[in-house]
Amino acid sequence: MQFFSDNSALVHPKIMEAIAKANHVDAAYGADKWSAQLNEKFGEIFGAEIIVHPVSTGTAANCLALAAMTQPYQGILCHEEAHIVVDECGAPGFFTAGAQIIPIGGDGAKINPHMLTHIISAIRDDVHQVQPACLSITNASEYGMAYTPSEIRELADIIEKNNPANNGRRQGKIGLHVDGARFANVVAMGNYSAAELTHLSGVDALSFGCIKNGGMNAEALIFFNTDLAKASEYRRKRAGHLHSKGRFMAAQLLAMIEDDLWLENAHAANHAAQIIASACGDRLLYPVQVNEIFLRLTADEAQKLRNQGFDFYDWGVNGARLVTSWHHSPADVTPLANAISDLGEFQAS
Amino acid sequence: MQFFSDNSALVHPKIMEAIAKANHVDAAYGADKWSAQLNEKFGEIFGAEIIVHPVSTGTAANCLALAAMTQPYQGILCHEEAHIVVDECGAPGFFTAGAQIIPIGGDGAKINPHMLTHIISAIRDDVHQVQPACLSITNASEYGMAYTPSEIRELADIIEKNNPANNGRRQGKIGLHVDGARFANVVAMGNYSAAELTHLSGVDALSFGCIKNGGMNAEALIFFNTDLAKASEYRRKRAGHLHSKGRFMAAQLLAMIEDDLWLENAHAANHAAQIIASACGDRLLYPVQVNEIFLRLTADEAQKLRNQGFDFYDWGVNGARLVTSWHHSPADVTPLANAISDLGEFQAS
Amino acid sequence: MQFFSDNSALVHPKIMEAIAKANHVDAAYGADKWSAQLNEKFGEIFGAEIIVHPVSTGTAANCLALAAMTQPYQGILCHEEAHIVVDECGAPGFFTAGAQIIPIGGDGAKINPHMLTHIISAIRDDVHQVQPACLSITNASEYGMAYTPSEIRELADIIEKNNPANNGRRQGKIGLHVDGARFANVVAMGNYSAAELTHLSGVDALSFGCIKNGGMNAEALIFFNTDLAKASEYRRKRAGHLHSKGRFMAAQLLAMIEDDLWLENAHAANHAAQIIASACGDRLLYPVQVNEIFLRLTADEAQKLRNQGFDFYDWGVNGARLVTSWHHSPADVTPLANAISDLGEFQAS
Amino acid sequence: MQFFSDNSALVHPKIMEAIAKANHVDAAYGADKWSAQLNEKFGEIFGAEIIVHPVSTGTAANCLALAAMTQPYQGILCHEEAHIVVDECGAPGFFTAGAQIIPIGGDGAKINPHMLTHIISAIRDDVHQVQPACLSITNASEYGMAYTPSEIRELADIIEKNNPANNGRRQGKIGLHVDGARFANVVAMGNYSAAELTHLSGVDALSFGCIKNGGMNAEALIFFNTDLAKASEYRRKRAGHLHSKGRFMAAQLLAMIEDDLWLENAHAANHAAQIIASACGDRLLYPVQVNEIFLRLTADEAQKLRNQGFDFYDWGVNGARLVTSWHHSPADVTPLANAISDLGEFQAS
Repeated sequence: MQFFSDNSALVHPKIMEAIAKANHVDAAYGADKWSAQLNEKFGEIFGAEIIVHPVSTGTAANCLALAAMTQPYQGILCHEEAHIVVDECGAPGFFTAGAQIIPIGGDGAKINPHMLTHIISAIRDDVHQVQPACLSITNASEYGMAYTPSEIRELADIIEKNNPANNGRRQGKIGLHVDGARFANVVAMGNYSAAELTHLSGVDALSFGCIKNGGMNAEALIFFNTDLAKASEYRRKRAGHLHSKGRFMAAQLLAMIEDDLWLENAHAANHAAQIIASACGDRLLYPVQVNEIFLRLTADEAQKLRNQGFDFYDWGVNGARLVTSWHHSPADVTPLANAISDLGEFQAS
Repeated sequence: MQFFSDNSALVHPKIMEAIAKANHVDAAYGADKWSAQLNEKFGEIFGAEIIVHPVSTGTAANCLALAAMTQPYQGILCHEEAHIVVDECGAPGFFTAGAQIIPIGGDGAKINPHMLTHIISAIRDDVHQVQPACLSITNASEYGMAYTPSEIRELADIIEKNNPANNGRRQGKIGLHVDGARFANVVAMGNYSAAELTHLSGVDALSFGCIKNGGMNAEALIFFNTDLAKASEYRRKRAGHLHSKGRFMAAQLLAMIEDDLWLENAHAANHAAQIIASACGDRLLYPVQVNEIFLRLTADEAQKLRNQGFDFYDWGVNGARLVTSWHHSPADVTPLANAISDLGEFQAS
Repeated sequence: MQFFSDNSALVHPKIMEAIAKANHVDAAYGADKWSAQLNEKFGEIFGAEIIVHPVSTGTAANCLALAAMTQPYQGILCHEEAHIVVDECGAPGFFTAGAQIIPIGGDGAKINPHMLTHIISAIRDDVHQVQPACLSITNASEYGMAYTPSEIRELADIIEKNNPANNGRRQGKIGLHVDGARFANVVAMGNYSAAELTHLSGVDALSFGCIKNGGMNAEALIFFNTDLAKASEYRRKRAGHLHSKGRFMAAQLLAMIEDDLWLENAHAANHAAQIIASACGDRLLYPVQVNEIFLRLTADEAQKLRNQGFDFYDWGVNGARLVTSWHHSPADVTPLANAISDLGEFQAS
Repeated sequence: MQFFSDNSALVHPKIMEAIAKANHVDAAYGADKWSAQLNEKFGEIFGAEIIVHPVSTGTAANCLALAAMTQPYQGILCHEEAHIVVDECGAPGFFTAGAQIIPIGGDGAKINPHMLTHIISAIRDDVHQVQPACLSITNASEYGMAYTPSEIRELADIIEKNNPANNGRRQGKIGLHVDGARFANVVAMGNYSAAELTHLSGVDALSFGCIKNGGMNAEALIFFNTDLAKASEYRRKRAGHLHSKGRFMAAQLLAMIEDDLWLENAHAANHAAQIIASACGDRLLYPVQVNEIFLRLTADEAQKLRNQGFDFYDWGVNGARLVTSWHHSPADVTPLANAISDLGEFQAS
């Protein structure tokens, strides 16, 4: 059984079924009944009037959101270990036509509010310095750490209060984007409302993850600040992310939220992670909040686990990363938990 | 029955089946058995060692190919009515980071060799002028006209002979790209080999269309000049076109060429177009070679056809465009052919 | 005596003097008395509140203006033979991060209003087509033809009336830019006011030429639509066009307009051109309105002139281009005029 | 007397003289005797065959060099406080069309070799991570700290040994660029040869500063790796940095190196800085190696100095930055040194 990443997990049967159903109609470029329902159906989930743009990867969702907020001569505030910085081959620079990353530190790949305040307040509003146009956070973070609604609100307040534009030359507020590749896992974990994790806490746009949660090839770029959506339609087209048979993407997204499938899947993944985490004790490098486990593991111990048929990524020296997904049942992961317990106390080799 | 475009046609059952089968495996980013077979299986179709990159839209395939050949300060030779110029919202400028379109004329949206020679030979090799880096042709063209292998070879010879780089400063040959959104229809129509329409005639890269021919969301960017493929992997990733569950795209592409499904579908679409064309007589604006019919039609006549349940795009004043696809059977289109015949002689209103 | 181009002419003594004077002060990035006067002094010339950005080349002035009006996913309407299209190595694509050129035809490199109307009115406001964001005209044109105020107004009305944005999705008016590398020559020729050739006729931004008219390395990018100026300050900096010793550029620009030096120089260049034109008779390919002469000339005739010490560019077969500048006195050009007269009637060889 | 920056200092009389002389010739775009001598004359300074491109700002020189080494999908290794990161409004992202900054730490804004090794060796050669294409260092650094030839060689060895490309996919070596806005000050300070500070230590391109050292508007972009120069000619043109009257830039650059004026000016600036530094004692935040002094200074102390007619930039709380230039004579700065001495011991307020 492998725990490399949820990004390759099987597609949920209900999603496959929805895709099959969407094949009985002939309509191009979103002129279909599935695409037509996206704004309303997702609007119900978020309790707001929103605009939803389906795209086929998280990178596209993230960077179209950033491009909608950021001019080429501006900057993107984000964690120095954010996915957009370390795992997308420079996609933000591509979609924004050269906007500069302004990296912020913080534990567990979560932005430290003090560091954010320090950096943003030091930016002079003159033409020599890159002016920040947006803040992008990842919820859950690269290390599986979740932001609470109040933590998001705190960051939103910082960028509002310290916006260099308030001093003069640059117009407009600094936008707030959430990379929500594992947004469902956060909602499920904290029993939060989708609203309080987003627009109620100052979020302008969300990359709503579907693929890691049982989808095939559809993510939802959601604009709470609907003024940002218009230009984004052009950007999506010229980036090659407008599908002529978009009905298959829309159908996946609708199936994902129907009867709360997205939460059901997220709960399953989170639960599987907790079972494994419960066996890790002091081995845990970060508290397990959603579906990622980072643990101390020597090369020998890793080999032992692999010999028993469990596979995963090494994480530096004496470390490992395991990710669970919707299709990992308790029965699937219990043997792994037991195998980890059997390793006994961690002792760095 | 609608004839707006083949880009929205139903997905062929064999493709749906292949997608379903690809769901029984968990492997990310092309580390799956389907992706592993692409180069070899497509290489057999083209009789060459090639590299295949699956992407989810024709715009992505076209523009990644252009970006692989063109530096930001160079130019793209193509027909002034090419899809990349008039129908992709400036995507070439986005993927190449600003390369300039150098438009060429020609009937039926096919490049006129004399016009190409005239324009390219007038470009001085100095820093003031945009130096052409590639020529992109569309086969079949926007008006459903096909280039023969010898016509492609003629164009390839022109860009080779007149390459300003030969005079000095700029290095490398001018690349040749084929937008093959309807490549299958050309092969099927002319009973050509895939090889003679591409690398045997000097083609470096091909956008091999799958979606318009019964696929769901996969096109194949094929590099015959495999040196171009390396950098393109990075570009594909940062453009958000590398799918974590790429196995579903690879599976579609393999199913499309298995047992020549791609040609079977193309033959069906071409045949349906011929049935309609045979009823058009003098109404035809262009000879019908593949699956697009452009015909003279007054507003009244168009209304008559729509009243009988046939729908399509108007094409300027007194004109209409009809596109057939793999799922239009002779039984489907014969009524339309009869309806057109019943209109009698065309008389401009 | 050479007539290749006014772009290399000597710098006028008064400009050299102004540069020397600006060396007695130490102040960086426009915090000097010369830079401080630009908006006011140029505002007097144009009878309007304007913002002036000094830059060191016409390409920078033109493309910063275009970038201020055009998003990367939009288009630039301009003549197919405009300097920005054929002589700036794709600079518009660079400064706008990929905006597409939408070429328009017209005699003498002046935009034909009917062709502009035809092209712009055919653009659908959908995401597949590049939406025009600005129209750039060159006054005087590449062939030395001038637009009158009413001709400019006619074009301004066309882009206003046919703006696809009026139908919906895209916001804002289409901007109007004038490449005025030889703007002074037009004002001098037609005895127009600078105002009627620009903001009074709907112009948003002007590249005010100084270098071809006796300057050293300063052009003035003038914003009549001052809302465009703010973001342009950032673009100018990141393009490397903000000079720390900008006082030397500001001093040139002020000296150029002081006591109407700009018009004096332009009159001299225009007058020299008229003296030469008067000797060309039927040889003229275009009427000589400012300081460019295009004439029929066989290779033998060209050689004869060169043997007498006159040099210039050939213009295709049996053609030549001569450009006069501020430092060509009547005494300088009369011998050339005589030499051309001595050639007698033109007879194509 | 002001000590804000050397970037606004007066232009040296010999440079003004050279500019005046260059006005007696009419030749465009580098077809003049001054431009023709650049490669040879600068080649003598560096003891190598080089190619010199004059540009009008340091930002243009730096970013054209980076663009010559870096594809849009690659990365730029540099100090997190480098001028290209914090003071050029994102220019690297503009000139490279989106390349990502990969920030490195180190004291005094000099790259720490261990940190460089740590970061570069952690980059996997896969498409998800930005692959470094060049390393840019600033000599002297933003804090006036100089790299010795052996320190530069150490960094060159690190990027050579740890080049991810050596593992596979990416081709070519990682380029090494030096931002030498104050290169002359380093040569003068250490009595180094220009060669050992550049190509003999693995440097591919240098931004040779002239403006901060008594020039008006010319910097020299020098390619030691001459293969990089060809494409850069196109980039320079489309960036609006090719001057039609480039002879005035070339003349400045030649005058700057004639009879070692560049070193004479740098020695004067360095000497003035030493006089001031000698009065600062424990106040110094960094050792003064070239012409920048960073010292502890309370607000009251700063006011006292300003009351005596000395002006400079505050540097955070209780800090100040003073920069000397070629035209600061010992007689000019001695009063400042005395005034600082009179402040007595520093005591944080």
